[in-house]
Amino acid sequence: MYAFSNAVNSMHSEDIKQLMKQASGKSMISFAGGMPNNDLFPLKQIDAIYNSLPEDIKKLCFQYGPTSGYPPLVKSLENYLENKGLAVRNNKILITTGSLQAISIITQEFVNEGDIILTENPSFVGALSVFETFGAEIHSIPIDKDGIDIQALKDKINSLNRTPKFLYVTPNYHNPAGIIYTPKRKKELLEVLAGTGIILLEDDAYSDLYFEVEEKQLTRSMKSFGVKNVEIIYTGSFSKILGPGFRLGYMLSSEEIFEKAESVKQALDACTSNFMQILANEFLAQHKLEPYLEFLRSEYLERKNLLQRHLEAYMPKEITWNEPKGGFYIWLKLPAHIKSTDVFKETVKEGVVFVTGRTFDPASKKDDRLRLSYSNMPKDSIEKGVIILSTAIKKVLENSEVTLK
Amino acid sequence: MYAFSNAVNSMHSEDIKQLMKQASGKSMISFAGGMPNNDLFPLKQIDAIYNSLPEDIKKLCFQYGPTSGYPPLVKSLENYLENKGLAVRNNKILITTGSLQAISIITQEFVNEGDIILTENPSFVGALSVFETFGAEIHSIPIDKDGIDIQALKDKINSLNRTPKFLYVTPNYHNPAGIIYTPKRKKELLEVLAGTGIILLEDDAYSDLYFEVEEKQLTRSMKSFGVKNVEIIYTGSFSKILGPGFRLGYMLSSEEIFEKAESVKQALDACTSNFMQILANEFLAQHKLEPYLEFLRSEYLERKNLLQRHLEAYMPKEITWNEPKGGFYIWLKLPAHIKSTDVFKETVKEGVVFVTGRTFDPASKKDDRLRLSYSNMPKDSIEKGVIILSTAIKKVLENSEVTLK
Repeated sequence: MYAFSNAVNSMHSEDIKQLMKQASGKSMISFAGGMPNNDLFPLKQIDAIYNSLPEDIKKLCFQYGPTSGYPPLVKSLENYLENKGLAVRNNKILITTGSLQAISIITQEFVNEGDIILTENPSFVGALSVFETFGAEIHSIPIDKDGIDIQALKDKINSLNRTPKFLYVTPNYHNPAGIIYTPKRKKELLEVLAGTGIILLEDDAYSDLYFEVEEKQLTRSMKSFGVKNVEIIYTGSFSKILGPGFRLGYMLSSEEIFEKAESVKQALDACTSNFMQILANEFLAQHKLEPYLEFLRSEYLERKNLLQRHLEAYMPKEITWNEPKGGFYIWLKLPAHIKSTDVFKETVKEGVVFVTGRTFDPASKKDDRLRLSYSNMPKDSIEKGVIILSTAIKKVLENSEVTLK
Repeated sequence: MYAFSNAVNSMHSEDIKQLMKQASGKSMISFAGGMPNNDLFPLKQIDAIYNSLPEDIKKLCFQYGPTSGYPPLVKSLENYLENKGLAVRNNKILITTGSLQAISIITQEFVNEGDIILTENPSFVGALSVFETFGAEIHSIPIDKDGIDIQALKDKINSLNRTPKFLYVTPNYHNPAGIIYTPKRKKELLEVLAGTGIILLEDDAYSDLYFEVEEKQLTRSMKSFGVKNVEIIYTGSFSKILGPGFRLGYMLSSEEIFEKAESVKQALDACTSNFMQILANEFLAQHKLEPYLEFLRSEYLERKNLLQRHLEAYMPKEITWNEPKGGFYIWLKLPAHIKSTDVFKETVKEGVVFVTGRTFDPASKKDDRLRLSYSNMPKDSIEKGVIILSTAIKKVLENSEVTLK
């Protein structure tokens, strides 16, 4: 046994390893992975881009780049974010190796062991694993169908004897809860944070994946609201809109936060792959993103509709959920007396996997939910998967009644 | 001013930012950057690989992969490392986002704030920035032309009141010192560490870049010596042999160290780009690496010879150096009474940059050396660069004599 540091123990990174294993199990029907479907990637577009790169740019693909990012990509991202209403000019962009690295950098930048971080409950498991790795004390606040519970957030802040470093939220097409914050809830959230010194970490990986164009206005980021008395760090990702294999994300923050973040990134991996940055830049600069997103939106809408329809047809009446309006996830609610972990034990025997509710609880306890991802499976497997899942749930429900008697 | 964590201040990451800026200054003659030359990258080979990837593999390029690495690349690396004499079977490979990430992972895995790390002096500035970021207390041991000073290492270990977490060394074609450890010195180093509980972190980024084939045996890694009483973590990189833009490195360690490292990596960036891993795997699996390395070796030998010849022709007799037998660097020694920082102030006015000695001193003080990299500049600029450098050194020498009088 070696003298490991205090940082290395994280329950949630074990959960993720398990998740990765489930997601890559070939013969399984998997509702588990939060990744795009292999058949939807823009192979042809990237082929065309790669093969038309001028030789001098292609050479740059192989070389180191600045720690902050490949300058033309930073420029393209500025345009992209400005189109989303973000005030890029008074802020700085740092390109990261996936948006998980952005979360990791921000945590390293602000958090000493024992510092408090606030999260939603449920929360993105990847972020939880980062916070644990840096020894943060995580306090979580419940969410409902409109966003974080404002009263619970106020009560939590008032109950703490020291100021949390930041509040981590994923307001648009929440992972795992599938909801989108209402504009009212976003506004209320900013009001609660105003003047507290608690930084808002706004993780926005899914906002481009709304199903209907009328939804678009609801995806507006809190960073674009122009509030002066809340410091907001905004993170985004190429993983859901171009491919996780690129490992490209970014953060948008004030210059002071950017400067320190750049130094942290320098020590983490020096710079993000120029190769991937150059391909992504051409994708943006050649205006290939928006038509590709339109294709993705219709594909994911179709998958969501399929899953929704089959859930309606097969699920016992005790099971409820909110129909998502974008993103990758449906978050099923079970009766409080049964556990998603018990349902999982049944479905896995029949070749179906999903992610249990407790995975997304910072305390790894609350287990009356389960996450179904419709993004990454063949469309014709959805019905079969739902039948196996509903059969398993019925079995667990019946067993629980037997136990109650 | 925000409440940043204790981790964010690192002198050496500022040095690196400066270095990156210098290295990318277009009109400069730069001896600064430790990167391959843009004109030497294997563009044609990678083009051929990319365009012949089967569609199902190309889809994988866009997808997440396992945190530990793309399995076929792990397999190819096993073969590659076994050919280098490393006992891969009793160990595990973790693919990292550049070998700097491996160093970062290992540091996070073992080091709490205030823990001691031993390094060589001089030492790779990237590693120093990592160690500082994690709040380590760095103690350095001088090296001579044959490797680390064994007596100084013993004395240092005996003088400390707690056990250092690890000793970080780059024994093959040292950055910045250009030397290679003798087999005797490698053996002595292992004897000193035996039974102390100090892990050896063996960074081997340059060993494939020997100039003459007879050198190859001297590059043998200490991890391959089969010593039982020293724990050795071995790190390697694709940056110097395929291109830094790939951001691909790896670490080879015992399974227990691998397991924790995998969890840390999970929280840093989830996984390394599948896209880059798949291209690199094909490069190895299709046996394209060895012929490409032969080409690189002859190219860098030619550049080294040019630099060596011009230094002999132009440098004042007070300046000494050891001619390197591989790698990227010549490490000039100045008379003790002048500083490389003062030389730099002169050369930069004339359009020549290099890296000052103090950059590589963990204490940022010792400044009677300077690093010249011959890897990354047009061959026909070397003579002009040396003339400007030698003129600047003469000027600083003369000024120092005036001051002495």
